[in-house]
Amino acid sequence: MKGYVFHGPGRAAWEEVPDPGLRDATDAVVRVTAVTVCGTDLHILRGDVPEVPPGTVLGHEAVGEVVEAGSAVTAVRPGDRVLVSCISSCGRCPSCRQGMYGQCRGGGGWILGHTVDGTQAEYVRVPFADLSLHPLPGAMADRDAVLLADIFPTAYEVGVLNGGVRPGDTVVVVGAGPVGLAAVATARFFAPERIIAVDLAASRLEAARNLGADAVADAGEDPAQLVADLTDGQGADVAIEAVGVPGTFEMCARMVRPGGRVANVGVHGKPVTLHLEDLWIRNLTITTGLVDTRTTPVLLRMAAAGRLPTSRLVTHTFGPDGMQEAYDVFAGAAETGALKIVVGEEPHDVVAVRDG
Amino acid sequence: MKGYVFHGPGRAAWEEVPDPGLRDATDAVVRVTAVTVCGTDLHILRGDVPEVPPGTVLGHEAVGEVVEAGSAVTAVRPGDRVLVSCISSCGRCPSCRQGMYGQCRGGGGWILGHTVDGTQAEYVRVPFADLSLHPLPGAMADRDAVLLADIFPTAYEVGVLNGGVRPGDTVVVVGAGPVGLAAVATARFFAPERIIAVDLAASRLEAARNLGADAVADAGEDPAQLVADLTDGQGADVAIEAVGVPGTFEMCARMVRPGGRVANVGVHGKPVTLHLEDLWIRNLTITTGLVDTRTTPVLLRMAAAGRLPTSRLVTHTFGPDGMQEAYDVFAGAAETGALKIVVGEEPHDVVAVRDG
Amino acid sequence: MKGYVFHGPGRAAWEEVPDPGLRDATDAVVRVTAVTVCGTDLHILRGDVPEVPPGTVLGHEAVGEVVEAGSAVTAVRPGDRVLVSCISSCGRCPSCRQGMYGQCRGGGGWILGHTVDGTQAEYVRVPFADLSLHPLPGAMADRDAVLLADIFPTAYEVGVLNGGVRPGDTVVVVGAGPVGLAAVATARFFAPERIIAVDLAASRLEAARNLGADAVADAGEDPAQLVADLTDGQGADVAIEAVGVPGTFEMCARMVRPGGRVANVGVHGKPVTLHLEDLWIRNLTITTGLVDTRTTPVLLRMAAAGRLPTSRLVTHTFGPDGMQEAYDVFAGAAETGALKIVVGEEPHDVVAVRDG
Amino acid sequence: MKGYVFHGPGRAAWEEVPDPGLRDATDAVVRVTAVTVCGTDLHILRGDVPEVPPGTVLGHEAVGEVVEAGSAVTAVRPGDRVLVSCISSCGRCPSCRQGMYGQCRGGGGWILGHTVDGTQAEYVRVPFADLSLHPLPGAMADRDAVLLADIFPTAYEVGVLNGGVRPGDTVVVVGAGPVGLAAVATARFFAPERIIAVDLAASRLEAARNLGADAVADAGEDPAQLVADLTDGQGADVAIEAVGVPGTFEMCARMVRPGGRVANVGVHGKPVTLHLEDLWIRNLTITTGLVDTRTTPVLLRMAAAGRLPTSRLVTHTFGPDGMQEAYDVFAGAAETGALKIVVGEEPHDVVAVRDG
Repeated sequence: MKGYVFHGPGRAAWEEVPDPGLRDATDAVVRVTAVTVCGTDLHILRGDVPEVPPGTVLGHEAVGEVVEAGSAVTAVRPGDRVLVSCISSCGRCPSCRQGMYGQCRGGGGWILGHTVDGTQAEYVRVPFADLSLHPLPGAMADRDAVLLADIFPTAYEVGVLNGGVRPGDTVVVVGAGPVGLAAVATARFFAPERIIAVDLAASRLEAARNLGADAVADAGEDPAQLVADLTDGQGADVAIEAVGVPGTFEMCARMVRPGGRVANVGVHGKPVTLHLEDLWIRNLTITTGLVDTRTTPVLLRMAAAGRLPTSRLVTHTFGPDGMQEAYDVFAGAAETGALKIVVGEEPHDVVAVRDG
Repeated sequence: MKGYVFHGPGRAAWEEVPDPGLRDATDAVVRVTAVTVCGTDLHILRGDVPEVPPGTVLGHEAVGEVVEAGSAVTAVRPGDRVLVSCISSCGRCPSCRQGMYGQCRGGGGWILGHTVDGTQAEYVRVPFADLSLHPLPGAMADRDAVLLADIFPTAYEVGVLNGGVRPGDTVVVVGAGPVGLAAVATARFFAPERIIAVDLAASRLEAARNLGADAVADAGEDPAQLVADLTDGQGADVAIEAVGVPGTFEMCARMVRPGGRVANVGVHGKPVTLHLEDLWIRNLTITTGLVDTRTTPVLLRMAAAGRLPTSRLVTHTFGPDGMQEAYDVFAGAAETGALKIVVGEEPHDVVAVRDG
Repeated sequence: MKGYVFHGPGRAAWEEVPDPGLRDATDAVVRVTAVTVCGTDLHILRGDVPEVPPGTVLGHEAVGEVVEAGSAVTAVRPGDRVLVSCISSCGRCPSCRQGMYGQCRGGGGWILGHTVDGTQAEYVRVPFADLSLHPLPGAMADRDAVLLADIFPTAYEVGVLNGGVRPGDTVVVVGAGPVGLAAVATARFFAPERIIAVDLAASRLEAARNLGADAVADAGEDPAQLVADLTDGQGADVAIEAVGVPGTFEMCARMVRPGGRVANVGVHGKPVTLHLEDLWIRNLTITTGLVDTRTTPVLLRMAAAGRLPTSRLVTHTFGPDGMQEAYDVFAGAAETGALKIVVGEEPHDVVAVRDG
Repeated sequence: MKGYVFHGPGRAAWEEVPDPGLRDATDAVVRVTAVTVCGTDLHILRGDVPEVPPGTVLGHEAVGEVVEAGSAVTAVRPGDRVLVSCISSCGRCPSCRQGMYGQCRGGGGWILGHTVDGTQAEYVRVPFADLSLHPLPGAMADRDAVLLADIFPTAYEVGVLNGGVRPGDTVVVVGAGPVGLAAVATARFFAPERIIAVDLAASRLEAARNLGADAVADAGEDPAQLVADLTDGQGADVAIEAVGVPGTFEMCARMVRPGGRVANVGVHGKPVTLHLEDLWIRNLTITTGLVDTRTTPVLLRMAAAGRLPTSRLVTHTFGPDGMQEAYDVFAGAAETGALKIVVGEEPHDVVAVRDG
């Protein structure tokens, strides 16, 4: 089969690799019908994730069809259309028993396209299939479903639920890339009074408005002042950091009211400064986290009921052979305006969020 | 009357000042029978809290007797023996309605010995008396009650409750001064499997053991390793920072397991470094806070029922004229071994925690 | 002034009564510009609430203007336009400190039109004005605001919050009268997958659809079967009882899944049978409660932001002299189709929810 | 092998039955070293649980040694000393993913000694071994461990956690049989101000005192009055029903304060009357539930740390051939004073709780 193989920093190719097969009784093999590319994949390509061995097939998000299932698999069988979660869960370790699948100590966690071959291929072996695959309703398009593999549960769990958004809140989402936009969309689940999106790119702020942001602010033009003005000087109830650099984290810590919460979603490469000399007295709560995908079943139900604007984040689609082109478009988002791209078998027409 | 008056950095004296009287209908005047000195008072004396105007009577913790009550006061009356809380609460602002009295926007919060005259005097005017005074059962000694003015609610609310201690947890308390020791004592309310106290002073570690710590660690000898050894390498469930310097905060962040919590209680004067490059993925929760004293009624009930070892933190007591001596002993804790000192009318004999 | 005075079972009149004045320093007097009639008022008239003394002015919901405020009142002043909450709160007792204002032990709770003169009059004395009145934004119409005095906080706190509605849930609301409809509207705050309204009246089910119910069921035609069909036989996550008779409570207990919740909002006059022989094993949670109105500030913000369809529940309006007519229309709801009626100074045109 | 076989109402015997073997890849076979008898076993014998087919080996609590493990079992292996939980968990169904193992929809739940052969035998086949067995520390005696199979997690989860016990609470436990006593012991985890045990038998009340009850009340002598006296007329914060008859449930509902909680643990055979005509206004929460045993790992840690007085509930022990005698002693508890009996290989001396 073909797969997108990492060959060390800066080098990867869509090339012939051996077909995957079952190894453990809890494995399944899935024929991939749609995948997407994540910012993390770009980090791997840049060499920022050194534990990924050269020769690994990348990708941790997919939709497909089960073609083979191990003897201990009971929740899916060949022929089932499934979502492949970015997180694999053994279901037995202390972390998994508490729903903290992202911290699985039994061999799962984020492994696809990381420590084992991933989803950017024609077929993928999925360990712990019972807990790591989710059957899909027939009516849900691949391009809707594939966004539930990572982006939406990450934004919802690590941003919105950790942030404790409640009815009437003022919520600031800093960073209107795909995860930030998914945070805007899922923060709506808790009826905040207003959601304010902050970014440097006007096109992303427009996308945020289309997905439900009530106000937007240019990150370069003192968004803290806008937040203060809208909240009688109190500050936001919740700030969701969806960028991953020190400046935006520190902006979030400054923008919340006493008693407020900062939910970090961004992937950081450097330490940040926490101004405890000011914040020790402000009843602040800060959370970090890797997604557990424990909410994927709920998100799937919400998407199936038409209550989640998943595919509106998809700006570009490509046919099965378009993997390299997809990477190029996604890596050049500043020029191409790409939010999420989908590579797959379905027809290519897409209504992007930016066209509202 | 006499009061302990701040005259600018490094200068204070027990001297004659005008008697306080009622100003607002919600005020009460209390004759003080016992006070204590807080680390914050030392900060003020050093000039670290510049908003305290010279001429202010210091102190925010006391026990006493109501001698006069304003026309709108209904919860206490002259003759009542009361605890004076370190936090005053207007009871009407949005913060107070949510029990966040420390962040009162209606004129309360931490005001005694800070923005208005405080408790280290023969009499003190207490604003918002209905919510800021707590009637005391007759059987509770002054030296027990006065520790509930600040130390115990601070340790319990900002450390133990924010830290979310649960049955079976491993809890680390970094810093075994008065607040850290009160955190050890109140963490016991939630039946942790073990509490580990960390400090540099052997005498404080011994006090921690006497108050219920199951293990102790010298801060200079790699306490993180001890925590790892006791938890199969996982780390603590909860770390409570009760020192207020960057090194101990960062130690706490390193010592908790994925999914763990760091509750900051220490008063910090400098920024700290938060290693988000490691922590973004670890499902960490960090909290900060000023005490609200919303749990004071519960703590009073627990102390009255003999379930809280309050006065075991008292190492030294002084008669009514001993204020300056008390400050000297408290400021010299490294030599004197002082934990909490009490200045007041009651007899002077004390069984200190260090004698177990 | 004029007021609507209860004269014992079956007898009441809009008649001349003495003007109210301040009694306590915490009182305010409000000139009433809009009131509504509650099902509870009908109960009083029928003699079901014997503690109401003859001679009492009825009514516990109003909008108006402060004309006089006691010396200890700080949160409102003459000229302020305010909402009069159905619950008065002393703000100092143990119940109020925990936000449980409906259970106030300091002289508040439900007192207006119950144990003291109420709002169905030209003027009303409001005890504990600081915590029992809410300043209104100028742009909010009386008929929107007055529904926040009781109906909406009751439905939201006692139904939706006690019911613990969460994203993705199936919620059943049994009884589509005013409180049930407000429960439909506020359950939307938590993004349930579907809300199913149950009633006997087709007109009320139509109103429920207009307010956001996804499905409706005739109470006489086995609604439990519909719920089972929609949930793969599991049952609802949450059932909200908004009628107050044994049959509907028992229906709710049957309709929820293992682990589900029944939130009772209805006012019951008889015991109900709880089938513990079936339910002991089903991880059921049942809640009851009187409203606290602690969420009124949030609901006001949501209404002001256009996120709460308050006045869509108003089917009839009357001028200042229309009190008796309003009672007649409301008491004859089966014929008149009345949901909420408003008596007040504002123009009479209304767009009722039934017209969608 | 020998097993205790149910032969229809009133008939059972310790007799020769076929050895169990593996059926599914997720099974394990355990050699039983200690079992106990549960009140539920007596119900089965009386014919109250008709779904138990004649021919079934009874028992759902055991300690033993794994002798065989299926190919998909990874958490235990032959030779491991284990606790057999009363609840089996598939780990994959929606209920299990939320930790609600008692409601497993994948073939687990309470099955041992109910729908499949149980633990009162020399060997037992345990389905879903990975999640249904718990490795034991070597130092824990069988008689301590076996009480963690059902009694302690039931009391803790369904009584104490559902009841939401908090520091400072007044907790009433109605029924001081084994589950009620375990509720007294585990309620201590949350530092209530006082625990009041209610029963008809003086010996059980004495046992309750020995396990940590602060006050006891004869069920026949108006315990509600004692509760009112101890709480200034307010009522208890939490009442735990551990009997299972209408009178005790209704007693619990009467004894809690406004805002209080009733946690039903008792197994009921008849409906109860819920006095909603009084309770609708009292902010009551009522919970029911079957144990999930999700807290078993925590309870095991607490017991291993010496923080749980498990074996103090054991009043009688018997050797491996003593099963029938054990049933007789347990069924005659009114005369024998039996609380928990243990049948097993360990030496027979026991220090019963009644000897304090």
